[in-house]
Amino acid sequence: APADNHQHRIVAVPGDGVGPEVYASACTVLDVLSSRFGFGIDIDEQLIGGAAIDATGNPLPDETVAACRDAKAVLLGAVGGPKWDAQPRELRPERGLLRIRSELGLYCNLRPIVTHPTLHRFSPVRPERLDGVNVMIVRELTGGIYFGEKRREGDVAEDVCRYTADEITRVTRQAGRLAMQRDRRIVQVDKSNVIETSRLWREVTERVIGEEFPEVSLEHLYVDAAAMHLLSKPASFDVMLTENLFGDILSDEASMLCGSMGLLPSASLADGDFGLYEPVHGSAPDIAGQGIANPYAMLLSIAMMLRLSLHETEAADALDSAITDCWSDGVLTLDLVPEGVGTEAVTEAVCRRLTGAA
Amino acid sequence: APADNHQHRIVAVPGDGVGPEVYASACTVLDVLSSRFGFGIDIDEQLIGGAAIDATGNPLPDETVAACRDAKAVLLGAVGGPKWDAQPRELRPERGLLRIRSELGLYCNLRPIVTHPTLHRFSPVRPERLDGVNVMIVRELTGGIYFGEKRREGDVAEDVCRYTADEITRVTRQAGRLAMQRDRRIVQVDKSNVIETSRLWREVTERVIGEEFPEVSLEHLYVDAAAMHLLSKPASFDVMLTENLFGDILSDEASMLCGSMGLLPSASLADGDFGLYEPVHGSAPDIAGQGIANPYAMLLSIAMMLRLSLHETEAADALDSAITDCWSDGVLTLDLVPEGVGTEAVTEAVCRRLTGAA
Ligand SMILES: CC(C)[C@H](C(=O)O)[C@@H](O)C(=O)O
Ligand SMILES: CC(C)[C@H](C(=O)O)[C@@H](O)C(=O)O
Repeated sequence: APADNHQHRIVAVPGDGVGPEVYASACTVLDVLSSRFGFGIDIDEQLIGGAAIDATGNPLPDETVAACRDAKAVLLGAVGGPKWDAQPRELRPERGLLRIRSELGLYCNLRPIVTHPTLHRFSPVRPERLDGVNVMIVRELTGGIYFGEKRREGDVAEDVCRYTADEITRVTRQAGRLAMQRDRRIVQVDKSNVIETSRLWREVTERVIGEEFPEVSLEHLYVDAAAMHLLSKPASFDVMLTENLFGDILSDEASMLCGSMGLLPSASLADGDFGLYEPVHGSAPDIAGQGIANPYAMLLSIAMMLRLSLHETEAADALDSAITDCWSDGVLTLDLVPEGVGTEAVTEAVCRRLTGAA
Repeated sequence: APADNHQHRIVAVPGDGVGPEVYASACTVLDVLSSRFGFGIDIDEQLIGGAAIDATGNPLPDETVAACRDAKAVLLGAVGGPKWDAQPRELRPERGLLRIRSELGLYCNLRPIVTHPTLHRFSPVRPERLDGVNVMIVRELTGGIYFGEKRREGDVAEDVCRYTADEITRVTRQAGRLAMQRDRRIVQVDKSNVIETSRLWREVTERVIGEEFPEVSLEHLYVDAAAMHLLSKPASFDVMLTENLFGDILSDEASMLCGSMGLLPSASLADGDFGLYEPVHGSAPDIAGQGIANPYAMLLSIAMMLRLSLHETEAADALDSAITDCWSDGVLTLDLVPEGVGTEAVTEAVCRRLTGAA
């Protein structure tokens, strides 16, 4: 049996649509990794999103939250689908996602955008712009207009975007720490020529990086310019730090550099080592149940979990290389190529490379 | 002398940086057009932005606003520059831009994104995705978080995003009218799975298009998905209708489809025929004063003015074709090609085509 510090308790919330399918792939791969690298993993499966609404009437049952609080990490599949679209806001699957972020204090969302030469051909962006792209998008995840007051009175609607210096400070520290392990450059994205919260972002990031990370360079960019530069010079970015809504838009735009959403992992971190890991793609109801979902984003997400929350660095490295080896060997899914293979075939190909059978 | 309805009084606010340079190009071209098409144009030059701050301490002097109210249209160059970056918000050049939009009721911003095969090579996006791209972005320009209340108390900042049904109705009507002259398809972009103002946008656009434009199809798209689809399937869009901030980000992203910001015109319309016309690019302080600014965006903006405010349709058509002829003939500027020509050379090339001398 593995030593105590190699015995990990995690919660899985497979969710809706293709969520359970890519989660099944994750289980198989975690199994292979745990035997090969001698760690143990206990998975507590819980409900979220539409699945939770159907079973309990609540997109994020208390039991799920309680279980997460006892775990080292959470693995999330995807939430949502047309079945629940007509529900009122508080009872929609997305509320489960927003509430789990907020209740678990997952304020720091990491979306790495790394291009791989074999995959250049799938991007709408010209290959010559894609070489060397390695952007870490750090998105604030529990503040801003997502969580501010909402008002509706007759024909008038309002949303409040609110940030405190503390909220900006803690995510800036995470960005600073990351930058120190990378190329030490942060571009902070805002709209400070127009909005007040953005001015606070500029002030606080200047202070935190200036005082605590003197070796890190900090630049500021307006969000409209950032939306252009992500296309005109994507390889120029190292860490991109931004608020919740801008991070949502820019990270989805940036995902196009990699060719398919099906390839993009994410981590949402709290203070300490706790984090929630999920593929960036959604529940993809149109292809759910067919066994053809691309599991790479989920597998890259478990690599992030192994690295950042479980400290199983060797296993994380091995999984990352098994995945890029698969890409180089042309193990691709239907979202990328017409002759693509299904979820299980990818899972097996990754496992074969992990066990040295390929 | 031209008949009364062909005698046009417009205001020009050349502004800062390359603004006056591209404005000079506009004057030359308007001159040629007015002789050829028999209309008269009186231009009243006024101050805005940094130039206005330097002369009067105010980025939008009352005199400028009064002059605009008496005119059929306003031609704007660009505002801003590092010289005024340290000023407090109310005294920055951008405030002049935001205030002129608001004071003149310019609630409907049009940013046409049309690709041209000769220019495909300048876009970071693959040429095969660019064929047939013709998106009209309709951005609401006088509401939302840009003009909502702003608060700052110590370590907390807030911005309010506010929309009324009336604000959404009037811009939706403009989008509906435009769609009727095009492919009759509107995609309305919002974040209604998270924010309340977006829910109002969905309701009102459904109502207005459903009741007043039954032949127009209306779809809704989340802003994060829109940021992807603009790259993965740009040719699928006809009219894209959205609120102020999303329009700012998405239109700059979309500008990359055309290769250079130096090619993109815009119109900002009030009720009736009044409008303000400006190139989408900014003041470009780094190249100002060198005679190398790309005037195409400004020239395309005057084509929009001739069409939408002055009803000089023939002149507008002639100018549009003279410009695309120049592109086909390789008359390109330095932002596009290293051997590019300067502002005056482009202006002359366009005028030669307008007078039949080329
Ligand atoms: C589903 C939605 C609420 C969510 C968000 O906007 O944060 C998603 O787009 C994401 O980026 O994880
Ligand atoms: C300069 C700035 C205030 C302005 C805006 O955000 O509207 C500009 O980016 C634009 O799009 O015209």
